[in-house]
Amino acid sequence: MLCWLNRLHGALPAPTGRIAHLRPSSLRRRLALSSQRRIPEFSSFVARTNTCGELRSSHLGQEVTLCGWIQYRRQNVFLVLRDSHGLIQVVIPQDESAASVKKILCEAPVESVVRVSGTVISRPPGQENPKMPTGEIEIKVKTAELLNSCKKLPFEIKDFVKKTEALRLQYRYLDLRSFQMQYNLRLRSQMVMKMREYLCNLHGFVDVETPTLFKRTPGGAKEFVIPSREPGKFYCLPQSPQQFKQLLMVGGLDRYFQVARCYRDEGSRPDRQPEFTQKYLKRKDIESIRKFAADHFNQEVLPIFLKANRNWNSPVAKSIMEEQRSGLTRLMEIQEDDVVLLTAGEHKKACSVLGKLRLECADLLEARGLVLRDPALFSFLWVVDFPLFLPKEENPEKLESAHHPFTAPHPSDVQLLYSEPEKVRSQHYDLVLNGNEIGGGSIRIHDAELQRYILAELLKEDVKLLSHLLQALEFGAPPHGGIALGLDRLICLVTGAPSIRDVIAFPKSFRGHDLMSNAPDSLPPEELKPYHIQVSWPADSEAEKSSLNQPYCPES
Amino acid sequence: MLCWLNRLHGALPAPTGRIAHLRPSSLRRRLALSSQRRIPEFSSFVARTNTCGELRSSHLGQEVTLCGWIQYRRQNVFLVLRDSHGLIQVVIPQDESAASVKKILCEAPVESVVRVSGTVISRPPGQENPKMPTGEIEIKVKTAELLNSCKKLPFEIKDFVKKTEALRLQYRYLDLRSFQMQYNLRLRSQMVMKMREYLCNLHGFVDVETPTLFKRTPGGAKEFVIPSREPGKFYCLPQSPQQFKQLLMVGGLDRYFQVARCYRDEGSRPDRQPEFTQKYLKRKDIESIRKFAADHFNQEVLPIFLKANRNWNSPVAKSIMEEQRSGLTRLMEIQEDDVVLLTAGEHKKACSVLGKLRLECADLLEARGLVLRDPALFSFLWVVDFPLFLPKEENPEKLESAHHPFTAPHPSDVQLLYSEPEKVRSQHYDLVLNGNEIGGGSIRIHDAELQRYILAELLKEDVKLLSHLLQALEFGAPPHGGIALGLDRLICLVTGAPSIRDVIAFPKSFRGHDLMSNAPDSLPPEELKPYHIQVSWPADSEAEKSSLNQPYCPES
Repeated sequence: MLCWLNRLHGALPAPTGRIAHLRPSSLRRRLALSSQRRIPEFSSFVARTNTCGELRSSHLGQEVTLCGWIQYRRQNVFLVLRDSHGLIQVVIPQDESAASVKKILCEAPVESVVRVSGTVISRPPGQENPKMPTGEIEIKVKTAELLNSCKKLPFEIKDFVKKTEALRLQYRYLDLRSFQMQYNLRLRSQMVMKMREYLCNLHGFVDVETPTLFKRTPGGAKEFVIPSREPGKFYCLPQSPQQFKQLLMVGGLDRYFQVARCYRDEGSRPDRQPEFTQKYLKRKDIESIRKFAADHFNQEVLPIFLKANRNWNSPVAKSIMEEQRSGLTRLMEIQEDDVVLLTAGEHKKACSVLGKLRLECADLLEARGLVLRDPALFSFLWVVDFPLFLPKEENPEKLESAHHPFTAPHPSDVQLLYSEPEKVRSQHYDLVLNGNEIGGGSIRIHDAELQRYILAELLKEDVKLLSHLLQALEFGAPPHGGIALGLDRLICLVTGAPSIRDVIAFPKSFRGHDLMSNAPDSLPPEELKPYHIQVSWPADSEAEKSSLNQPYCPES
Repeated sequence: MLCWLNRLHGALPAPTGRIAHLRPSSLRRRLALSSQRRIPEFSSFVARTNTCGELRSSHLGQEVTLCGWIQYRRQNVFLVLRDSHGLIQVVIPQDESAASVKKILCEAPVESVVRVSGTVISRPPGQENPKMPTGEIEIKVKTAELLNSCKKLPFEIKDFVKKTEALRLQYRYLDLRSFQMQYNLRLRSQMVMKMREYLCNLHGFVDVETPTLFKRTPGGAKEFVIPSREPGKFYCLPQSPQQFKQLLMVGGLDRYFQVARCYRDEGSRPDRQPEFTQKYLKRKDIESIRKFAADHFNQEVLPIFLKANRNWNSPVAKSIMEEQRSGLTRLMEIQEDDVVLLTAGEHKKACSVLGKLRLECADLLEARGLVLRDPALFSFLWVVDFPLFLPKEENPEKLESAHHPFTAPHPSDVQLLYSEPEKVRSQHYDLVLNGNEIGGGSIRIHDAELQRYILAELLKEDVKLLSHLLQALEFGAPPHGGIALGLDRLICLVTGAPSIRDVIAFPKSFRGHDLMSNAPDSLPPEELKPYHIQVSWPADSEAEKSSLNQPYCPES
């Protein structure tokens, strides 16, 4: 795996000068797009002769046609044109005979789309821009055409630090024009392509698409339901292609892979749980971390600063008795000037959020010059020997699967299944990169009897819902296992993006809303009729119901 | 496009001897998998040293470990082992000292999974099998292990002509083990990989995933709805990434592509419509065509044979008056011994089904040796100059989009939009391969005013539902267009598969059922509660409701 990611990393081209807007952590990783090798020959259907980013001194004297967005204009003399390949400076003609061209180029609002034709010329001595790959030349324009005008923008494209995330999501198509989003999405495309080439071309894996419309299965409480045209019958969106990949193994699709969609209806629950971090933070850093926790995880975080007199400076100080405060101070071994971050909620989720906040703190401190981690390293870690079962949270006498009921027990522990199942280790494994879980997988159970015993006897599940899988195991299922990588998170780590929403073209807000199109949206009852469902309005939501047709208001 | 598919076709490797079960039409196309170049080096986690299909005389004397399914056994002396790379003959040891190995290999039922270790030896002179790529050698087994046993099969894997399609779908994991399904799915994987390499690596396209959970949009009557946790709010599964691809163009994702899922809730309506075909068919051919129409399209087809006395020999003869019969005979210019196939229903769908039946007839006649089409040719055809609008079926005074409301008008016809919109040609184009529509696309409207005029004034749609798209067009949307290929159908044509269900790993039945897992399935009301919906049982379906918990019975 290490080798695999390192090869992938090594295979990506070296950076060009175009990635000026990258965050430091991603600059350090130095992954970038090549603009050169991707310039294709253009067909007769393409209006441009070149892209904006590719012209150099070697093109001097050439007649070119370029299309792009107006990035900015200087004194009605220069105009910078942008396409996905880069920027180029265009000289607006000033002579009387070219008045119509000047009018078009001077009146078109910023971010309008134009086509220009002209000659590649040298910039006058002293006016070269070494920071710009096309900075030695400019285009002397002869003709221009306004392809589409742009109205006043809600924010400027060139600023990557934009107003609010809600605004960015609402105008996602504008946000996508930023260098950072172009970089993230194009890098993602190339990374996935490298993965495919490695798996398909080098190792004979077969790419198989599995269905999106499936049925509810045990443990599927987080699956979206889809009503069918048969009364009372529902499909589900699978949380993962978990069962299908096992069925493909039973079907002899040796070495299967898929870039799959996973659908998890996480709802939105504010969870809280105590943990702490230290590692010279200022009060404004704490505020930025609290905002990060609120924006990205919907999680409230409260700071505790330990004063010289060992008293707490904290909004929670009043709510906790002094004796408990000093107890906690001792327990957490807090020293003067230390900062503790306090949160509350379900243990596992809060730990995960706090783990991320710890990384965020490290980012803040490193941005200030403190070297905490070697940024050139990809540090991988395998987590193994998980327990196969955990006591149920609501009823600790009973067991539930630590991961899912299809994970095989550790070969040395199989006999314990029948005596002390809580002691059985699993053949599950997690992969961690630089402190972040980026994937996990397991060797699966291929023995139908063992699978039935675990489902029915240990987990008390209704095996009828899984009869297709149990039956498949009886028909010569080979021993099998695999791994799933979280692509969004992996690409976040590689690009240094602060959120997975920065590596997805059209992400949902953390509440699951599409702020651009306003999904989910209400439907008239007649559109629900073919699906034999009706809305059960909660008793207290009559007001909400009557407001359904009001104008759209994005969440803040 | 022609060049593109021809390159793709040319780039696929030449066939090996393993594709013995292909249908003639696909054999003629001679596309196959390479088994040689895909054998990877094996890691320490892999139990086998080689695959079953790769061993040759050059491996003589090597000690190997193989894993696979027992394909068949001959007189307890030979056993043929199969994996996804091919078949190999294994010699079961007969000496007393190897009694335990013999017992394992002789008692394991067919399709059990075994691991064997032994030596590659020559077959005795005269016992070579030239039809088998591994036919010069066999494995002298020393050790064997039963990895998983197989219970009695519902059908034999090696027969591609299996009982019924319902049975194949119910036991899909067994069906997937057939040579034909392995070939189809692996070829599909390779074809898609070639497409990706062509688009990404040669032409700088960027692969972007667009969301599955979207909102209902005009013309979305066939979109599945997904209730959200907000009362009365629903997502939709998009019929295509149509709007997202436009928004990506507005976002500057120049040269986007995606291997996308499209969700269309077609329901199941038996449609009927008259058409005819000729081209020496026997009565049993007609029966097979009627069965094909019923199985694949849920469509009833009735034949008319014209007798020497010009009377009809047909089940519909009695229902049509003699005068009308002879009128139809003249109109359709039927000659003696001609066959007419009659069906009824919605015009466009019936025409499409009859087009497919015409191709099916050609297949039948060609299988009999009649040469109607050159099988080595890929004949492409562009269909252009479609009308932009059609009169509404239920109200011919009003217009509806011939394809969808985002298609741009033909540049020469723009002025007609305001006077005679029904005469406007569109910039839509369809691509046809060997008589089958394999793709279509259009130049889109990039002008917000024009788009608003067409939606609001000509089509009387509620533009509020599309405000995100109209707004995006106002922010400097570049002129753009594209094409979508129907991958399932394209791969059907290349493999010669009779149905798209033969090129999809886990297809639904034509009624939209997953016969393996029994999806869609009923859900207890408490699982619907978080989604604020309840089932509206049709008045006449109380009986059905009470039978929901009965055992699963696959559709026939």
